[in-house]
Amino acid sequence: MSTTSRRFTLASRPVGEPTPANFALETVPVPEPGPGQALVRTIYLSLDPYMRGRMSDAKSYAKPVEIGETMIGGTVGEVVASSTPELSAGQIVVGQWGWSEHAVVSPKAVRVLDPAAAPVSTALGVLGMPGMTAYVGLTRIGEPKSGETVVVSAASGAVGAIAVQLAKLRGCRAVGIAGGAAKCAYVVDELGADACVDHRGSDLPAALREACPKGIEVYFENVGGAVWDAVMPLLNAFARVPLCGLIATYNATRLPEGPDRLPQLMGLMLRQRLTVRGFIVSEHWDLMPAFQNEVAPLVRSGKLKYREDIVEGLAAAPEAFLRLLRGENFGKQLVRVGPDPTRG
Amino acid sequence: MSTTSRRFTLASRPVGEPTPANFALETVPVPEPGPGQALVRTIYLSLDPYMRGRMSDAKSYAKPVEIGETMIGGTVGEVVASSTPELSAGQIVVGQWGWSEHAVVSPKAVRVLDPAAAPVSTALGVLGMPGMTAYVGLTRIGEPKSGETVVVSAASGAVGAIAVQLAKLRGCRAVGIAGGAAKCAYVVDELGADACVDHRGSDLPAALREACPKGIEVYFENVGGAVWDAVMPLLNAFARVPLCGLIATYNATRLPEGPDRLPQLMGLMLRQRLTVRGFIVSEHWDLMPAFQNEVAPLVRSGKLKYREDIVEGLAAAPEAFLRLLRGENFGKQLVRVGPDPTRG
Repeated sequence: MSTTSRRFTLASRPVGEPTPANFALETVPVPEPGPGQALVRTIYLSLDPYMRGRMSDAKSYAKPVEIGETMIGGTVGEVVASSTPELSAGQIVVGQWGWSEHAVVSPKAVRVLDPAAAPVSTALGVLGMPGMTAYVGLTRIGEPKSGETVVVSAASGAVGAIAVQLAKLRGCRAVGIAGGAAKCAYVVDELGADACVDHRGSDLPAALREACPKGIEVYFENVGGAVWDAVMPLLNAFARVPLCGLIATYNATRLPEGPDRLPQLMGLMLRQRLTVRGFIVSEHWDLMPAFQNEVAPLVRSGKLKYREDIVEGLAAAPEAFLRLLRGENFGKQLVRVGPDPTRG
Repeated sequence: MSTTSRRFTLASRPVGEPTPANFALETVPVPEPGPGQALVRTIYLSLDPYMRGRMSDAKSYAKPVEIGETMIGGTVGEVVASSTPELSAGQIVVGQWGWSEHAVVSPKAVRVLDPAAAPVSTALGVLGMPGMTAYVGLTRIGEPKSGETVVVSAASGAVGAIAVQLAKLRGCRAVGIAGGAAKCAYVVDELGADACVDHRGSDLPAALREACPKGIEVYFENVGGAVWDAVMPLLNAFARVPLCGLIATYNATRLPEGPDRLPQLMGLMLRQRLTVRGFIVSEHWDLMPAFQNEVAPLVRSGKLKYREDIVEGLAAAPEAFLRLLRGENFGKQLVRVGPDPTRG
């Protein structure tokens, strides 16, 4: 085993779009597990839009990553040495040790995975935080009823793809919004959406209106910006808007030019009696059993589809993260940091 | 009895602030009740901010008043002639027959009041639509818990005054926002708020921050504009915003100058996991029994305070309505259209 390990720390805070220079690749000795700890070798690192927020020190729901700290992130890895009876070498675990090839963890900070139940990478996607995010937003806030129209932005992404399929399972008309023809085809042909609108097309508002002839009862918001602008006029009375992400605005350094449409949004929420509710998945863990009960069997049986976009090696993480922020990934973005012994 | 009756119709749609010329006073014959109907003489007409919306033909939750139609409005009156066994002369009823001295009504369109239970004017205020609006917004959407800070705008008004008192009854810190020193003193001294901030003061954001040292968990929104601007930065994580009215913006003819703060509001709702929910009281009548059970005894015992601002004679209605839109009324705005036989 190598005696050194690499990790990415936050080198500087981005202004606007992050660049590779915001990350520093460091080589350090492989850490030693103390009593009650284990050493894990990273197999998969998850890249997710929320990480953009943690790179900033603007006030938010979570404290920022400090300069010089290892970038945070969900991870799957293999136990390679253990000083605790609760973990043993060869086990595959999921945790949150970040952009690093190795880490020392305590048993409480990880969950042991059963590779026979599902591919271990799904613990970072459809059966992990992104899938749970889709479940929480759709069921707890969206509350879709059969026959209603549910629109999902970033519909081919890790969260959106699950939201689309859960909406279909509830008897809804599911309409995706995604960037480009290939993603839209995937959302309709593979995920089963009734329609998918390309937000890079020439007239998004008209295309979305056509795809939602009866308006919109639930809008699962991952994007903001021009996509939200196209959705707003189509929201029916009593529509629910689970507000999950606003990736179109994460790199903004200033507000757009006027006029100031804030009062317009307030007026719309009043007149249409909308419910707009922001949420963070980690504050809804009480729904985890319901999520696992519904979604895990669907993944095992192949009824619920998911797609992974995997880049190779920790060094590729910064560029893959920037691609993700530009919407250039296709499916759940993962970095294969080391070999996956559970895949043939 | 007079053989003629007066009423106000909508003469023209306002552009910006309404003027008296938007209303036409007409004299018509007193109508005759047909079989199964009754003739009522109006005692009180309620004036409420929502009427501004009905004067416009912009898309909204209710159809607009048509040009030439009688202005809509809640009313209390006395039955003066009846062709139905369900109503008899001398009874006092509450209904929705609008800005008119007389009307023919069917029994289903009115509710008979018991003058011994409470002053009949309260059927248009604390025990009627405005009181119920406060109850719905605060309990169903605000869901205040003991110890939380509840901020209520238009706090001396028909809705706000009840919301303030209901928040205090639930063990909350209640902070009002009102226009002018007299109203603020009333909100604290009579309604029992812990503080009240004058939105006409020199530095509303600083004054509100001082009145809410632990931030805001529930904001009962009646106003919008600069008041909402002052509230936004103080909203704590998971704050709830019952969106009841936006009186500051009802007369706006165009959006304010930029920058466009709409993305800022979306970002705030996400980061702070806010719930913003527009509502219309008439879609929550299921709460009426709970409202009556809690509030009616408090009104009878004098524990729940209310204040009426009464102008005399139907002819005064347009000016009183314009005063209301400018926030120059003080308490529930009523027009005494005819004598109240239940008051000594």
